[in-house]
Amino acid sequence: MQVDLFADAADLTAQLVDIESVSGAEGPIADAIEAALRPLPHLSVERDGHAVVARTGLGRAERVILAGHIDTVPVAGNLPSRLSQGVLHGCGTADMKAGVAVALRLAATVPEPARDVTFVFYDCEEVEAERNGLLRLSRRRPDLLDGDFAVLMEPTGDVVEGGCQGTMRAQIRAAGRRAHSARSWLGRNAIHEAGGILDVLRGYQPRQPQIDGLAYHEGLNAVAISGGVAMNVIPDECVVTVNFRFAPDRSAADAEAYLREVFAGWDVQVTDSAGGARPGLAEPAAAAFVAAVGGTPRAKLGWTDVARFDALGIPAVNFGPGDPQLAHTRDEHVEVAAIAECEARMRRWLSGQPFSEA
Amino acid sequence: MQVDLFADAADLTAQLVDIESVSGAEGPIADAIEAALRPLPHLSVERDGHAVVARTGLGRAERVILAGHIDTVPVAGNLPSRLSQGVLHGCGTADMKAGVAVALRLAATVPEPARDVTFVFYDCEEVEAERNGLLRLSRRRPDLLDGDFAVLMEPTGDVVEGGCQGTMRAQIRAAGRRAHSARSWLGRNAIHEAGGILDVLRGYQPRQPQIDGLAYHEGLNAVAISGGVAMNVIPDECVVTVNFRFAPDRSAADAEAYLREVFAGWDVQVTDSAGGARPGLAEPAAAAFVAAVGGTPRAKLGWTDVARFDALGIPAVNFGPGDPQLAHTRDEHVEVAAIAECEARMRRWLSGQPFSEA
Repeated sequence: MQVDLFADAADLTAQLVDIESVSGAEGPIADAIEAALRPLPHLSVERDGHAVVARTGLGRAERVILAGHIDTVPVAGNLPSRLSQGVLHGCGTADMKAGVAVALRLAATVPEPARDVTFVFYDCEEVEAERNGLLRLSRRRPDLLDGDFAVLMEPTGDVVEGGCQGTMRAQIRAAGRRAHSARSWLGRNAIHEAGGILDVLRGYQPRQPQIDGLAYHEGLNAVAISGGVAMNVIPDECVVTVNFRFAPDRSAADAEAYLREVFAGWDVQVTDSAGGARPGLAEPAAAAFVAAVGGTPRAKLGWTDVARFDALGIPAVNFGPGDPQLAHTRDEHVEVAAIAECEARMRRWLSGQPFSEA
Repeated sequence: MQVDLFADAADLTAQLVDIESVSGAEGPIADAIEAALRPLPHLSVERDGHAVVARTGLGRAERVILAGHIDTVPVAGNLPSRLSQGVLHGCGTADMKAGVAVALRLAATVPEPARDVTFVFYDCEEVEAERNGLLRLSRRRPDLLDGDFAVLMEPTGDVVEGGCQGTMRAQIRAAGRRAHSARSWLGRNAIHEAGGILDVLRGYQPRQPQIDGLAYHEGLNAVAISGGVAMNVIPDECVVTVNFRFAPDRSAADAEAYLREVFAGWDVQVTDSAGGARPGLAEPAAAAFVAAVGGTPRAKLGWTDVARFDALGIPAVNFGPGDPQLAHTRDEHVEVAAIAECEARMRRWLSGQPFSEA
């Protein structure tokens, strides 16, 4: 399979979408990307598993990273891609092959950018963190991720979204004592006890802090509940799984301490957590990016791999075409005009041109 | 496999326990019971599936039914039976092969009872109602279940337990609207909504009515709860399964109306229900039984097949050796003395002798 980096960005997006690449099966799309980049004389290209990294080496004062994952969630009857009235439909159109197409176009067509650029196309973003290709690169080839600033080309509707919120999951457990349900007063019903956990959640007031001028919005929600032994038994355990989305002024450790305070008196077991990233828009590289691409930045509320760059000490923002709300839906789509708009803005930035509203 | 109806009742109980008879696999024990009863000249014996019915035909003014199920719950490493310090341990000892042994002993050794007797040994009591052998007999051979009064020899600790409570299960459903958990305020969390269902359960005050002089005790409990779509999704549904145990002064229809009133405003779906049985201890046949076997009757709180006799218009009570709390436990056991005591009391009743405390 081949892709043509000199086709227009919407066309290139469709080519990428039509190479199915559900997480774990990115071989063919990584091969196609590598094969398309290798002939370009201004780039040095490296391959690590199903990740491809291409870099300019112009000796510029600043190096920026443009990154995008090449995997998708499972196909939902929405392949191959379909173009209709200026909208491209299909699995991965918004999340995030349109962003990947823009980055590939820039890699091919801006041979002498004002800043040195590292293009990172990586695998397994849509699955558990341990398999994430960016994490693997950061462990095996940290040298490839050196840089002053990163743009993660996740869908943001062509608006700069700064930082990201952290996410933590915990199991809150209510205990009881089993009994036959015909003599329920001999036991203690753990599901009824779990009403106290739901009381906490129903009474929770989310914090909406301003951080570096952006408005974050926390959330604490049950995402699962389960309890029950048999249809005639008073259950002795009920587990509520909560998902805490926390603003990036809390570390993961702070967030856990807060969660334990909120559920004081309950058995709390944290099952996974990932810290967020502060927006860092005051950093010179980030400020220059915002100035070049224009628009009013807003907070990123969902967790993204900008947090990985943050952990590597690299300021990062999210910026890309497409509506993030459409990610992972059967009706996922992206507007052709939004892809072109993103490419134009990024091109101005990489060329060192000032922003001017069209 | 053979059983000896002239062994003592504890010995016979052990023989029955050692013929494994988990629901659906009652063939061998039914064969053994049928083979033991057939040679007895004072009984006419009929077989229906894995149920065996044996009747005297003395032309007495009154016909009574002694009934017991011959199946057990799954074996839990507690076979074969083990006799230790006057206690017989093993699967089915209390629920209810001790009661079956007493009935078989009476069938064999009281050839001329003061009342005509129908002995009913039936299958599949421990599984879903549709498979119940007594239900099948009532449909295929209602003539075999004719009678004025029935004793179900379920474990009651040798105390007459009158009637039984009804049981009903219903799913109470809370609805919401899905959203990504990073932007939870765009959705409505059905698990949080279900807190309102748990509020109802936590605030419920059980009724404890006196019926025919016996104290019943209702109960309304969650026996299962489930909700959750994915670990990053605000769930749009949460289902609480409740079990309502209701006193026999409510019909199943009354109980359902009450349940719908308690959960007014919620989506309520009744999944199964079985009405209870009033104790009927004022009926002459029941009163005569209580007078003969002695003791102070109490209410049966769990549902039993006395409700089936009630539905056939036959007053019925529960009376048998063993602790009902031990039913379905790994440590199920019965005291040898309790089996003998039950047999002695039943024998006095069938012989027409007045009760006198030993």
